[in-house]
This record gives sequence, C-alpha cells and structure tokens, in this order.
Amino acid sequence: MTTTTEPSAVDELVEPTTDLAEQEPASHPRGPHVDVAALHDALLGRWPQWRAAARARAAQPEFWKDESLTTAEHRERVLGQCRLMAADPQHQSWLAFPERLGGRDAHGANLAGFEEFVSGDPSLQIKAGVQWGLFAAAILHLGTPEQQDRLLPGAMDLSVPGSFAMTETGHGSDVAAIGTTATYDPDTEEFVIHTPFRAAWKDYLGNAALHATAATVFARLITGGVDYGVHCFYVPIRDAEGHFLPGVGGDDDGLKGGLRGVDNGRLWFDHVRVPRADLLARYGQVAADGTYTSPIDSPGRRFFTMLGALVQGRVSLDGAAGVASRIGLAIATRYAAERRQFASASPDEEVVLLDYATHRRRLIPRIAETYALHYAHERLLDLFDDVFSGRGDTPEQRQDLETMAAALKATSTEFALTTLQECREACGGAGFLTENRITSLRADLDVYATFEGDNTVLLQLVGKRLVGDYAASLGAQVATAPGKARFVLGQVADAALHKAPLRRAAQAVADVVAPPTRGAHFDADAQRALLTERVEAKVAAVTLGLRPARKADPATGQAIFDRHQVALIDAARSHAELVRWDAFTAAVEATKDVGTRAVLGVLRDVYALSVIERDLGWFLAHGRLSGARARAVESELHTLLRRLRPHVLDLVDAWGLGDDHLRAAIATGAERERQDEARAYHEAQRASGAAPTPEKAFKARAR
Amino acid sequence: MTTTTEPSAVDELVEPTTDLAEQEPASHPRGPHVDVAALHDALLGRWPQWRAAARARAAQPEFWKDESLTTAEHRERVLGQCRLMAADPQHQSWLAFPERLGGRDAHGANLAGFEEFVSGDPSLQIKAGVQWGLFAAAILHLGTPEQQDRLLPGAMDLSVPGSFAMTETGHGSDVAAIGTTATYDPDTEEFVIHTPFRAAWKDYLGNAALHATAATVFARLITGGVDYGVHCFYVPIRDAEGHFLPGVGGDDDGLKGGLRGVDNGRLWFDHVRVPRADLLARYGQVAADGTYTSPIDSPGRRFFTMLGALVQGRVSLDGAAGVASRIGLAIATRYAAERRQFASASPDEEVVLLDYATHRRRLIPRIAETYALHYAHERLLDLFDDVFSGRGDTPEQRQDLETMAAALKATSTEFALTTLQECREACGGAGFLTENRITSLRADLDVYATFEGDNTVLLQLVGKRLVGDYAASLGAQVATAPGKARFVLGQVADAALHKAPLRRAAQAVADVVAPPTRGAHFDADAQRALLTERVEAKVAAVTLGLRPARKADPATGQAIFDRHQVALIDAARSHAELVRWDAFTAAVEATKDVGTRAVLGVLRDVYALSVIERDLGWFLAHGRLSGARARAVESELHTLLRRLRPHVLDLVDAWGLGDDHLRAAIATGAERERQDEARAYHEAQRASGAAPTPEKAFKARAR
Repeated sequence: MTTTTEPSAVDELVEPTTDLAEQEPASHPRGPHVDVAALHDALLGRWPQWRAAARARAAQPEFWKDESLTTAEHRERVLGQCRLMAADPQHQSWLAFPERLGGRDAHGANLAGFEEFVSGDPSLQIKAGVQWGLFAAAILHLGTPEQQDRLLPGAMDLSVPGSFAMTETGHGSDVAAIGTTATYDPDTEEFVIHTPFRAAWKDYLGNAALHATAATVFARLITGGVDYGVHCFYVPIRDAEGHFLPGVGGDDDGLKGGLRGVDNGRLWFDHVRVPRADLLARYGQVAADGTYTSPIDSPGRRFFTMLGALVQGRVSLDGAAGVASRIGLAIATRYAAERRQFASASPDEEVVLLDYATHRRRLIPRIAETYALHYAHERLLDLFDDVFSGRGDTPEQRQDLETMAAALKATSTEFALTTLQECREACGGAGFLTENRITSLRADLDVYATFEGDNTVLLQLVGKRLVGDYAASLGAQVATAPGKARFVLGQVADAALHKAPLRRAAQAVADVVAPPTRGAHFDADAQRALLTERVEAKVAAVTLGLRPARKADPATGQAIFDRHQVALIDAARSHAELVRWDAFTAAVEATKDVGTRAVLGVLRDVYALSVIERDLGWFLAHGRLSGARARAVESELHTLLRRLRPHVLDLVDAWGLGDDHLRAAIATGAERERQDEARAYHEAQRASGAAPTPEKAFKARAR
Repeated sequence: MTTTTEPSAVDELVEPTTDLAEQEPASHPRGPHVDVAALHDALLGRWPQWRAAARARAAQPEFWKDESLTTAEHRERVLGQCRLMAADPQHQSWLAFPERLGGRDAHGANLAGFEEFVSGDPSLQIKAGVQWGLFAAAILHLGTPEQQDRLLPGAMDLSVPGSFAMTETGHGSDVAAIGTTATYDPDTEEFVIHTPFRAAWKDYLGNAALHATAATVFARLITGGVDYGVHCFYVPIRDAEGHFLPGVGGDDDGLKGGLRGVDNGRLWFDHVRVPRADLLARYGQVAADGTYTSPIDSPGRRFFTMLGALVQGRVSLDGAAGVASRIGLAIATRYAAERRQFASASPDEEVVLLDYATHRRRLIPRIAETYALHYAHERLLDLFDDVFSGRGDTPEQRQDLETMAAALKATSTEFALTTLQECREACGGAGFLTENRITSLRADLDVYATFEGDNTVLLQLVGKRLVGDYAASLGAQVATAPGKARFVLGQVADAALHKAPLRRAAQAVADVVAPPTRGAHFDADAQRALLTERVEAKVAAVTLGLRPARKADPATGQAIFDRHQVALIDAARSHAELVRWDAFTAAVEATKDVGTRAVLGVLRDVYALSVIERDLGWFLAHGRLSGARARAVESELHTLLRRLRPHVLDLVDAWGLGDDHLRAAIATGAERERQDEARAYHEAQRASGAAPTPEKAFKARAR
C-alpha cells in the first residue's frame, strides 16, 4: 500500500534550530528557498496561456466589483461585463464550444481560465457561469447537433441571455422530485410546460429576475399518459423589451447575502407551448405521434447521465473556491508580515503578527491546504478534460469525475468560507472594512456551499460511491484469496481494536497497524499510510453497518441509514483529504528545483499534520496512533510552521496575485507606510530630547 | 473534585428504543416533555421584566432593520431608533446610570434588556452601545461625581451624541501602545490633545463618521515631561451643524462587512485644547501646577483598572451573541421541521430535514450550546451586577469578572458566527436570501469577533490568568502538604502518561484517572471529571512549560512563550467550556418541573458530549478516555439527538421569539403552506385519474 520512498521533506529543509529563539530573518533565509517565478509558472498548470490571460483580464478595472453601486446598478454592470467577455476577440468564454461554432472544444482550458474571474467579481463568475456554463452548456450537452447549431450561437454571443431553470422552491438539490410538467400534445406537436403549484416555481435562477430572454427548463416529460422523468426544454421567456411572454411569470429573489450583481429570480409557466423540436433531445426524443425513445433504457441511468453532463459547474466552483482562498490568504499574510502589535523582546520594535505562534497557526496551515486544493483541482481539470474531450469518456471515468467533483467542490467551498473568515479576523477591525475586500468576497462565496449541489448532499453521494466500490471490491475479490484476505484482515484487526481492552489494543496496534507509522517524523510514507488507512477503515465500517439495510423493510432500512449517515459523510471528507494529499505529494515529487521542492515538501507535511490533527480522536480511538505520537503532532506542527515562516511570502507571491487582484488597502503598502512614519516620529523625538519620560522611571528617580 | 450526585439525565428520559426505526412522533412525545411556558419564564432570568420589555420593544417595526435602505439612510434610521430609545418613558437605556440623574444604578438589568435589541437591528445595539455603554459609561466610570453631573445628562438624553475614541489605526486591541498625546499646559490649565502621526488616528469609532458631537478620547497624559500613560478626556468634536471643531478632523470608515447602520469613522486632533477639568479624573488628576496624582500608584494596575471599568461591552456582546444564535437556530429549526426533501420510507411522504441524522447533528448540539451560553451569561450578569452595584466589588471579584467576560465573549461571538453559518447552509438556497434574515444577521455579527477585544487576545488574557492562578496555588499550597501533593500527583501522573509506552500508559489510566470516567454512560459526574481534569491538565502543562521563561533573556523568553501560545489559548477555550457546563448543570438542577428537567438534562449531556467529541484527541492522547469509551461518544450522541428530536421545537419555542423577532419567510409558515398545496394537488390528480403513470411501470406492462 505504501510505495513511495520519498524522504521526509522535513529532513531536506534547514536543520531544526536547537535554540528556539533563533528564527531566521524573513529577508535572508538560509538553506533552501522558493524559486518564486518557477513555482508561479508551474501553478499556471496545463493550460498556462489561458489561465494567465484570464488572470490578467480579471485585473482590469472594468471587471472589478464596484462596492459603491446599488443592487440595480451592480446587476447592470455585471451584465455589461458579460458583454465585454462575449466581445473578447479571443473568445475565451467560447472555449468549450464546438469548433464549427467558433469554439475550440477545449473544456479544461475553459474552466482553468474561467475561475480566475472570481478575482474581478464573483457575481461575474456566476452570471457568466449561468450563461455559458449552464444555459449554453445545457444546449451543448443535452441537445442534438441540429439543436446546437440552431440555439448555441445566440447563447454564445449573449444575444440571447439565458437562465437555467432546474431548481424549484420546493426541491433544492433533489432534482428528481421537481413538479414542473411538460406534457406532449400530438395534435399540435408541442410540449405544454406547466407549473402545477407554488412549490414547483423555478427558484434562485441566475439571470431570471431581469435579463434572460430564454431558459433551459427542466420538467417531467409526459407523453401518452406516461411520466418519463426529468428532461430539459428550450423555452423563450421574455420579448426583446424584457417583458414576460404570455403564460410566463416570475418574481425577483430580491436581496441576497452576496452575489448581488446576479439577478436571481423565480419563474412559473402557465401552459406554455413549445415546439416538439425544442425538447433537448440527446438523451430522449418524442416522435410526432408521441412515442418516446431514448438511447438509455434505464430511467435512473438516463437521469444521472443528463445531470452528469452538467458536472462542470461543480468543477468550476472548486477552482473558484481556490482563487478566493488565495486572495483572502494573500491579503491576510501580507498584512501579517507588516503589522506590528504588542511589545517584543526589543523595546523599540513590536513583533509582526506572523511572528506570533497563534497567527502562524491561523494562516500557514490554510496556505498549505490551499496548495493542496490547487493540485487536486488540477487533477480534476485533467479528468474533466479527458472525459469531455472524449479522449477518456468511459462510464467509469464519468463516475470518477462526478465523485471527485462532488468531493472536492463540497470541501473546497466550505474551506474557502472558513478561510476567508479566519483571514478577516486575522486582520482585526481593518478586515471588516469593505475597502479591505475580505468580507465582500466571503459574502459572495457563501452560497457556493449550497448551490450546484448542497455540500451535505454531495458528500453523501461521494460516501455512497465509496461504499458501493468497497462492497463491489469485496465481492470481486472473493475469487482471489489474497485480495479477500486483505480485506478480512483489515476488518479483524479493526474488530479487535474495538473490542479489546486498551492494553490488548495497544498490542494490536503494535502488531497490525503501527509499523508504517512509527518513525520519528511523520514522513510521507507515514502520512500516506495514516490517511489511506483512515479512508479504508471508515468506508469499511459504514459498509458493514449498512449491510443489514438491504434485507430490511423500508422503515428499518431508513433507520439503519440514519444511524450511519454522519459516518458516511465523514468518510467522504476523509476521502477528499486523501485525494488532495495524493495530488500535493505528486506535485512535490514533480518539482525540479531543490529549494522549492524542499519548501513545498514541508508545506505538504503541514497539510498532512493539520488533517491528522483535526481527526486526532479517530486515529487514537482506532489504534492508528499511539498517545505519544498523537501528542507529537502539535510540536511537530509548531516546528514546521516556524521553519516555513521565512518562506511564507514567497509561497503567497507564487500565486501571481498583484495589487489589482487583491485591491485591499492593508495588503498593498498602507500599513508599512504608517509604521515607517510612526517610527520616524519616535526617533526624531528621542533625537531632539522631546520624548516624555515614562512614569515608572520618574518615580524611581523621585524616590 | 466531583461532588454532584445527580443521576444521569439520560436515565430520567424515555428508555432507549430497541428498534432504531421507532422514533416518536414530534406531536405526541411519550414520557417527559418540556413545560414551555415555565421554561420561557425561567429563561427570562433575574430581571425578567426588563428583559421581557426590551424583547417586546425590539419586535416593534420601528426597531427593525430595513434591508432596502442605502447606507446613508440606514445610518439615519438607526440614529432615529436611538432617539426613540432615549425618549422611552421607562428610560430603559438609563438603567445603569445614577439615580440622582434619572437612572436606577441597575447594571445587570440594563444589559439583560439591552442585548435583546439585536433582534431589531444589531446596528442599533451597537450604536446605542457606543452612546450609553461606551461614551456615557466612560464618563460614569472614569469621571468624578462632578463630571458625571456635568457631562452625563447630555450623553444620556442623546442631546450630545458621542463617540468612544480609544482604538487607533496602528493599534487595535493593544490600548497601552496608543500614540495620541494629551500634554498639560500649566500656563492655560489646559490639555493639548494631539495626533502625532497617521497610525495614531482614532479608528473604527462608532458615531464618529457623522453624528458624534463629543468624544471620550484616550491619550497618554503628559505633564512635567513625564508620560503617565493612557487616560481619558472629554473632547467636543463637532458643532451643532455637524462640522468638525477647529483642530479636529476625521474620515468615514466607509462600507463595512456589516453593521452598516453605524457610522464608523476616524478622528485626529491637531493640538486641540481642552480644560483641565475635562480629564476624566477618577483614577488620575492633574493639579493646576501640573502635579499628577492618582489613587492607584502602579501605572499598570491603574491602566487595567480604567480598562476594567469598561468590561460591560464584553458582557453585553456575550449576551448579544446568544440572542443572534437563538434567532438563527429558531429559523433553521422551524424550517427543518417543515421542509421535506428526498424520498422517505413512505412513498407519499418525504422526510422532513430534522429526521435526517446529519441535520440533527448540525442543529441540535448548537441548540444545546446556545442553552449553555445562556446559563453562563446569566452568571456573568450576576457577577457583573455584584461588582458594579458595589455589593461585591473586591479586586478579586473584578478580576474574576474580567476573566469570565473575556472567556465568554471570545467563545460566544465565535460560536454565533459558525452557528449562523450552519443555519444559513441548513436552509439551503433559501437561507441565502436576505428575506430569510440569517445572512444579514451573520454579516452584522461578524465584527463582534474582533471588537471590544480581539478574541485571540482575550483568550490569551484568560489563559494567562489561569496560569497565574495555578502557579499561585502551587506556591500557596507548599504550606499544606496534602494540597501540594495533590498537584504534584497530577503532574507525575501526566508525565507518566506522556513518557510511558502505550501499554504502561493504559495501566496509568486505569490506576490514576479512569475511575470517575468509567461508567456505562457519560453521566454528570463523568462529564464534570473529564471537563475539569482537562482544564487543570492543560493549565498545568502550560504553566510548567512557561516556567523557564521567567529566568530567560527576553528573546529566549519570547521563544518559550511562542512555543506555548497555542496551548495557552486552547486551555482558555477549555476553561470557557467548563464554565458553561457548570452553569448549565446548575440550571438543570434548579429546574423543578420533572419533564423539563429531564429534557434539559439530556440537552446538557449533548453539550458535554459535543465538547468532549471536538477535543477527543486530547482526551485520548492524555489517557482520560479509553479508545472504547471514545468510540462510544458518537453513538451516545446519536442516541441522545434522536431522543431530543420530539422536544426540539419546544426548546426553541421557550426562547420566546415570535414571528416579529424572526422575520424570516421560511420560518413563519410559507413552507408549510406550499407543501400543503402541493400535496392537495397530487391527491386531486390521483383522485381524478389524471396522474401520469411512471415510466417504469409502463415498461413493465409493455413487456
């Protein structure tokens, strides 16, 4: 299971200083250092030109969020920004569309660039995402070539602003349960789109409150009295003047917690007729006489295939969460490297925030995790590009892509929110000012946790896939004795640990699990063993726990599921962390520059130890760590964070975020200027003898 | 150490059901149930009439936050709301002021009511807090009776809107380091208030951008060439037309992440002269000839006494955090009890969100912690009232008050933010809409984490106090052998655990620590033992770790502190959790109604187990829990949460928050209405035979 022979990155970096007080000055780190330019280029990834172009574009003032606007003005500005994107001579927003229509069939490159627009304004990323990534993408992925040729050009050039009408008020992430119907009328060869009750109104739709003139509407297709489940229809909804067409109505979702530049709204349909040709028919067609046919027989598989075609939204949010985290961390880290607070050992100089252990603890593990996010996202983009380019489009690859997208999106959007909050608090009162950006960014990112799939629902999907795979592997390995033995051994060892008294458990640890995790350091092998074993053990436990549900009546089955739901989601989180650790480690190993590799290796160690620390109870309770090793995690982290201290700004600089991306007063020199001025004042006072005597000294003299 | 004989609350409540699927219907819980009215009354606390009156008042539309306003309009509205409060014939906002000036010297009652205004608009709570709780309170607590008589009436009746000018741009929570000077000029008997450089501008001051006409300004008092440290001065800053007075300038802090109804701003002073009489002179006076005198000799103690007089801000934020958490949880819980999502065992009925294990996990432990917050806050109010009424105003009581306020404020404001976020996500997309309130409330509460003392700084204060007390108790107990032995034993046991191999550690656990934590359940005794031991062990470890710093040179001393800073803050958090557990347990024991006590007891168990679970690694690594007991925490929690399920709405209802407090569409019936309509539609369809056949059934027939 553990195959790497990579030495611990810790050993490659500077030797530990025996004197705790000896900390390297940030300006002159001894030993290895980061080649910032090379790391920056490496981080641009597989489609560097598109990502760099988008990053440069997003830094132009016309793409910035303007905090002074009213909601109405903000919405118009963002529509204007989308028009600027559509008018881009490079047609970056068309990258994913077919060459015959002006695109490049370049799916990975498209997302790699697209997510960078978060640094301009997340509302732009989302509004553009609705237009090209959802509305147009639905036509692309669910439509026939004829429908693409007919409907895509207007969607691509924004002459038809569109909405993606899937979610309903009554059903958020549960798309299978939507209430809107599309009933086929063979007399006129039309579908009748209808909203039967209030809970079936389409809701939270970007572009729907104001700008969309058409929508891709998801409704249950009914023909010949049979409900064929959810399909997608192209439905014009407004005329050129912005008035609803007959039978269409709606509502503005009003103010939101963020993303106020997106005009989210609601739509309803009162027996609206659309031509038979406007059922997006790639996965299901209705003949003139009403006969339904589909290339996919199983209604369930058909439904998930249609939904799976829309996975790019999740991939893109994973990337956006990384961009937002980097912006927040860059602001907070630059400020922390300049801001002085409270007294230091030297009476003249206060300590900068980054020199406090608590502050390093708040920021550096998050910088490490942001790197982990990035490397895993790159692998997700690879997989996405493979599947959507057709180079690797197998059902298994598609399922892997959906699982990975769900696991990463759910955990990275959550990470972005807690990181932005930590950054805001790490900047104190200044962090709360809109001029310093972080609160605004956090408010905009908030909804990323629940749209394109609620994070809890997504993690449950991931958990179920893991359990399914594990159960299948158990079945498949019955044939091969060693494989079977491997899994059984795992279970026996675990059962022993659970039931034996602590003393016997300790022995079991020593015998079964401990060897790979016993080194003095938590080296890469130990990290891999711990994180891999954790996923396997958690998945195995849930699988065993859920097994009786198969033969149980529905109520009991539901109760059994209820008992294991929290553990299922926990296993999915652990899986996401392992995926990130793998990606991070592969990136470290692929780094050529010795200094950069050493620093990145320590950063990866910090990521691993942070992950282990937050689940320390599990590792201990399940015999994967001894008490002594568990207690060593904290001191090891402390040492690593001190060791990374001189490299922190390099690691942040490699993200390639300039002042025009950060746009935060506190991160762009204002703090240093104020401090220089204050220091100059005090020095002048002392030089002129004008400085007052402190009271204590005076009293001492007086006595 | 463990003195309670209270039986485990678990045993008092309904017996565990052997059939997991059997869950009680929410409408007819068997066994004990909550007497909602009695619990509601009990939660009104020690000054029920003032809290109830304020709660009723805050529910009146004129005190609501109006989300449609521009920032400028919002600021004016909140000023108007303050004027309404000032004009209140009951003079609730004057409660804390002297009777001779129209107040009631009622400090606890004042805060108990005041915090309720968060449900109207947090901007109002903060703007009113600046006026009466900071500006006027500075005059009250730092001024002489003559100054109170002269300056308080205008501050109390709002004819003088005021600002509290302590924080500077260059120094947030580090008040001792402020740069503003107040130099005494004996020739004119005036102080010259001066801002020597940009970093010394007063910053983030409520009321400063627009409305304040005077300010209590903190500056270093310099007389006769000696700097006597930070003192407070009453300084007029604007004329009646709102223009700055000569020598005074400032700036608007502009947009903020929340609290946009408060006009925060910056102030600077260019040799502004104020009469000698306007140094608020309770703790320091300057005679006409410039001689400085103070009732407190030590500059350090004087400084902390002055700051300590302003502790009520922290007390009040602790209460406000509780109110905000209750609003968020009431909205999310009511919605979760009605919102149906995904299929259930019954084909006709989906499961409501609260019937999902994950959803119970998200909300119920937070309801439990909110109760814990409340009960601890009540004890904090008691202590505050004792000290400020003079009934219990000893230096030790003051110090206890400051420590408790710091510990509770730092942890409750953090809790409020994560709770509001969890509630917003638990409501899905609907939670993101401003009409459902939560995002707005969260944005307003955000800054509570860093103002009135940055949470990290406050926890560090708490940690240092704990370490100081522990070190002192060690010293004090040298005289009494048993006491000394007690502490030494503790250390030896711990050292043994740290250094022995796991097997010997297990023995040590069995011998030394385990007995009180060994029951089948985590009963109250076990909880107390675990939570108490944890604080003691953490504080002891930090104390021992910091000891060498005393004899070290400054740089080494700082490095030693750095090594233990994270652990110091961790100990402070554990302390706050123990304080809350104690308060919660005392409240359970004081509850007379058997059913209410049983339910509250389980809720307290949930609080304790949640606390234990999130620090499970510590309990295991330090031999306080065996692996088996640690693994039992999750299943115990699962059982308790299922058992509480039927009582959740009662527990939320007892908070006394009506629709006019919640003002969230999803929590006030809209969801249920929509569901009833959808159900009626489906039933009518079935009855009329108009319902389409599902595809699968059709296919089965066709074959």
